[in-house]
Amino acid sequence: MDIRQYVIEKGKLAKKASREMATIGTDVKNKALEAMAQALIKNKDTILAANSKDIENGKEKGLSEYMLDRLLLNENRINDMADGLKNVASLKDPIGQVDKMWKTEDELQIGQIRVPLGVIGIIYESRPNVTVDAAALCIKAGNVVILRGGSEAINSNTSLINIIKEAAAENGLPKESIQFIDITDREAATEMMKLNQYIDVLIPRGGAGLIQAVVKNSTVPVIETGVGNCHIYIDDSADLKMAEDIVINAKTQRPAVCNAAETILVHKNIAKEFLPELSKRLKGYGVEMRGCHITKEIISDVKPASKEDWATEYLDYILAIKVVNSIDEAIDHIFEYGTKHSEAIITNNYLNSQRFLKEIDAAAVYVNASTRFTDGSQFGFGAEIGISTQKLHARGPMGLEELTTIKNIIYGEGQIRQ
Amino acid sequence: MDIRQYVIEKGKLAKKASREMATIGTDVKNKALEAMAQALIKNKDTILAANSKDIENGKEKGLSEYMLDRLLLNENRINDMADGLKNVASLKDPIGQVDKMWKTEDELQIGQIRVPLGVIGIIYESRPNVTVDAAALCIKAGNVVILRGGSEAINSNTSLINIIKEAAAENGLPKESIQFIDITDREAATEMMKLNQYIDVLIPRGGAGLIQAVVKNSTVPVIETGVGNCHIYIDDSADLKMAEDIVINAKTQRPAVCNAAETILVHKNIAKEFLPELSKRLKGYGVEMRGCHITKEIISDVKPASKEDWATEYLDYILAIKVVNSIDEAIDHIFEYGTKHSEAIITNNYLNSQRFLKEIDAAAVYVNASTRFTDGSQFGFGAEIGISTQKLHARGPMGLEELTTIKNIIYGEGQIRQ
Repeated sequence: MDIRQYVIEKGKLAKKASREMATIGTDVKNKALEAMAQALIKNKDTILAANSKDIENGKEKGLSEYMLDRLLLNENRINDMADGLKNVASLKDPIGQVDKMWKTEDELQIGQIRVPLGVIGIIYESRPNVTVDAAALCIKAGNVVILRGGSEAINSNTSLINIIKEAAAENGLPKESIQFIDITDREAATEMMKLNQYIDVLIPRGGAGLIQAVVKNSTVPVIETGVGNCHIYIDDSADLKMAEDIVINAKTQRPAVCNAAETILVHKNIAKEFLPELSKRLKGYGVEMRGCHITKEIISDVKPASKEDWATEYLDYILAIKVVNSIDEAIDHIFEYGTKHSEAIITNNYLNSQRFLKEIDAAAVYVNASTRFTDGSQFGFGAEIGISTQKLHARGPMGLEELTTIKNIIYGEGQIRQ
Repeated sequence: MDIRQYVIEKGKLAKKASREMATIGTDVKNKALEAMAQALIKNKDTILAANSKDIENGKEKGLSEYMLDRLLLNENRINDMADGLKNVASLKDPIGQVDKMWKTEDELQIGQIRVPLGVIGIIYESRPNVTVDAAALCIKAGNVVILRGGSEAINSNTSLINIIKEAAAENGLPKESIQFIDITDREAATEMMKLNQYIDVLIPRGGAGLIQAVVKNSTVPVIETGVGNCHIYIDDSADLKMAEDIVINAKTQRPAVCNAAETILVHKNIAKEFLPELSKRLKGYGVEMRGCHITKEIISDVKPASKEDWATEYLDYILAIKVVNSIDEAIDHIFEYGTKHSEAIITNNYLNSQRFLKEIDAAAVYVNASTRFTDGSQFGFGAEIGISTQKLHARGPMGLEELTTIKNIIYGEGQIRQ
């Protein structure tokens, strides 16, 4: 089969379906999402059988335990996917909402109404639940979705797609509203990135390598998600107990995610009091510390941090520690090494809190809270498709509204331009 | 000189300046813009002398009269640029505006505050006024701008940049807040498109060729502007006099711009009454008509329209005319040939007006008004940097707000994630 032609065909079907999809009512979308949830539960044996094949193949290929765990489905995980679908059904439909409406000097009434983006392409890696989660959010926002998952999960994804696609079509959604690229060849993903005629936006979900490949090769507009080299600056006015709790939470509650903290910047005035206590608790969690030379003077059993450490998103039980002379040095450090994801200051100084909020350029800037809150459901969006680290269109957690765009609707009475 | 290195240096200077630029107050920005306006007036002889060189070179190169006119500066046009600067100074500063603020279940207070995009790259063609207009809008929204104009205007642009840059720096803006790529080699533009590390967004301004080249080659996020194959559908319930006035306005008031109408779709029930009258008036304006076979039966002296005509943005005194059987056929035609810019229905039928608004996918959808209103100042934005025809980030006329992004600012009291 000609891969290019295959992908173009999927694009055409998607584009065509997007026209019908854009005008489908909220009730129909919700009913379909609920039916998809039921279908997952009903067909769980089929899904688990398909998943076993992927797990078997993965073991043969020598995938790590970590990768195999990401790939694994079990009854709980299928229930979670079904609950996710029901949750999305319960969220407010953003389509049709008029954000602003005004009258011009010519007495034209102009409104900005929320409409679907159209066709959304998702390129993702091995977790099969992305198939269901991403499809649900795209559909609820009135979009058609083209999914392209990792080759390791091909059997699981194919099974999931067959089940949700059938349930969607039987419940009033266009037959082609969920498209799946079942060619695992890398060329299929590359062709998707050139499909400007049929795809309105591409959202890569996965590791830094995947995301950079999509950003570099795509001519379709991309929303960049993910990489988070997040910092916590502990000001000399901080409540040190609060600072300790927040650092422990941001580092250890789930270290493998993008909103976990990777480096802490500690004001020199409180470093001697703060670091020994913190160090004890970090060790209790098995966190390896890498510190600057002043840190090493205070808590001797840390490894030395190199320049590379400041730039690394560990995604692991490792924390870099730097003692700084001032808030200015902290802000400078974050300007140099931050990835514009999530940054926090722990302080009780009003002016410093305001400076940090104003001067730090990131998707989420915190005063006295853990960076781990940068998340669609924590923000109150109900669910998220990812966390945008770019500045165009969406910044931070992306919920349903970020999967829409606006159109200007203009009511006239015969106006012509002078 | 190594062009790549040269462009990277400009990018570095811009990025560095963007940090200071983001925190500059409204008063300083306004004062600088007004000083820039005064400087243009004061130095008009220098500007005109530089422009004469470009015009001379252009004539030697055999540029068309049309191109030479775009390139030409005179006292009026310099005054217009100065007025444009003063106008931008008078607009409301979007920076610091909090669009939404809410409290989460964890009692975090989250606000979305408007911040600059950072560094904006503008790649444009021969009109030197873009240099000043684009710089003004970018600066007012707190951004640093990197300008890359066409080679034909290099002397004019260099002169304008020297003048506004000096005035800006003398009035409190960072010295490097306006960057100009004065290498006319195409490679310089290509390098800009790869400058992800230093440029946050690229906005191409010019013809379809330039825009497509930027969309295809840029790894930096792009806002696509411009191409408008705009339609007016005249429903059988339309007020025919109103329809006539609107078609004449949308076709002839300024045919070379993207919001001019290119094709009209006329309901068969009123075609015999409407087309002969319209045809007379169009001829009076020297408009060439190209019609479908039914159109030709009604007004014989039209050229036959080919499929290519339906897809062409003439930007000229040419109008394609098609008689359609129904609003459905009109919507189908626009779905197939439209460029999602501006589309209008002339109707007195309520349901048809609502269907058109709902089903047409375009940046601006009009009921009973001319497509010529798709314009930042007509929309009431005060000025515009271009008209986005893509769906990400901005759609339709882009004013100051579209040159900003948001950041999430989060006020906590020690919250950690459970």
